[in-house]
Amino acid sequence: MCPAFKSEHIPRATIQRLAIYLQVLEALKNEDTEVVSSERLARACDVNPSQIRKDLAYFGEFGVRGVGYNVSKLIQSIKVSIGTDRLWRTALIGVGNLGRSLLRYQGFPKRGFKIVAAFDCDPFKIGEVVADLEVMCPRQMKSRVQELRIEIGIITAPSDRAQRAADYLVEADIRCILNFAAARIQVPDHVYVEYVDFFHHLYVLTFKYCVGEAQRAKTTSKP
Amino acid sequence: MCPAFKSEHIPRATIQRLAIYLQVLEALKNEDTEVVSSERLARACDVNPSQIRKDLAYFGEFGVRGVGYNVSKLIQSIKVSIGTDRLWRTALIGVGNLGRSLLRYQGFPKRGFKIVAAFDCDPFKIGEVVADLEVMCPRQMKSRVQELRIEIGIITAPSDRAQRAADYLVEADIRCILNFAAARIQVPDHVYVEYVDFFHHLYVLTFKYCVGEAQRAKTTSKP
Repeated sequence: MCPAFKSEHIPRATIQRLAIYLQVLEALKNEDTEVVSSERLARACDVNPSQIRKDLAYFGEFGVRGVGYNVSKLIQSIKVSIGTDRLWRTALIGVGNLGRSLLRYQGFPKRGFKIVAAFDCDPFKIGEVVADLEVMCPRQMKSRVQELRIEIGIITAPSDRAQRAADYLVEADIRCILNFAAARIQVPDHVYVEYVDFFHHLYVLTFKYCVGEAQRAKTTSKP
Repeated sequence: MCPAFKSEHIPRATIQRLAIYLQVLEALKNEDTEVVSSERLARACDVNPSQIRKDLAYFGEFGVRGVGYNVSKLIQSIKVSIGTDRLWRTALIGVGNLGRSLLRYQGFPKRGFKIVAAFDCDPFKIGEVVADLEVMCPRQMKSRVQELRIEIGIITAPSDRAQRAADYLVEADIRCILNFAAARIQVPDHVYVEYVDFFHHLYVLTFKYCVGEAQRAKTTSKP
């Protein structure tokens, strides 16, 4: 089901960069670019070329000296290395504003994911159809997860209902959870959780801005 | 405008953890918890206690030995350290599904941000009111940014319009950009950009899952 890994210890930061490489490579492919040098790829990704060569060497991609990487082949290699050379069947729990926008988002399949079920405990939402999916009661989750062979759960519930949503997913034997709710969740050790919190990106921005301002103030106050 | 920094070199990973601490501390404050030990905070944040003590020491917070941290004071210290002890006036560009869900999201002000303007180049969207904001033409951006004293731009445009959105923001003298679009953007050196790409979190999940499966297969195949 999953590919054999050349390395089981690819660091998280590398996987983050692989996501960037994939994004840029897909754009190059759409422009019918067949081969790309590590320098050009580096510029487009805003990463230095030696970092790219190092990252790609992790999973045995070295490119051809003086020529570069074959775009389609590199896309396929990266997908195999992170396991997205197939579709991961995904359930979403919490059909609020964010949930709806994800359900309507068309970009999942080409990245290797498909939302095949949507759950919400609000009786007014159950039965509603959003992006061709009928919203279901979380009590049905266990049977639907088996039936639809769902492997990933996406939590878009409000923060005070995130733990309950997680409990439903764990109970349904889901082992991968992407949590958009602004709350930490407790799950058993065999369940992987990733948190999406765009506020930390905003904090990085405000922090950098403030540091920049402080430095500018220092520079201009010098005689 | 910005606080004096004890350290200009707080690593990105620390700022990410500060975001987690803030989230957990706010939840503790809502439960009327006044003091928290680094051990309890660590458990709730899923970070080890020595890491927390090290992170907080970055900006001069040491807590009281044997007692812990004062929750409200710690929240305030973290906010000051990342510059969110005030409201940052923000503009959003791209009123699609994601843009709408962010405009309707109520959680911005308590995290230090307020969306005060929304832009879209689609003539059918201009004039529409979403979450009390009238969608405006990006050509008006420069004057509106000055008028409304906007400092941060959030791009939620489709990927093929992300660069144009960035150009409008840069032209309007915005120096902080949060980009949700699935495309890299080019900006001058004095502009800070952060990318939000939840797919890298999905990739981390699928990667961990595959590595886990591979390890399980290895263990079960042993004699």
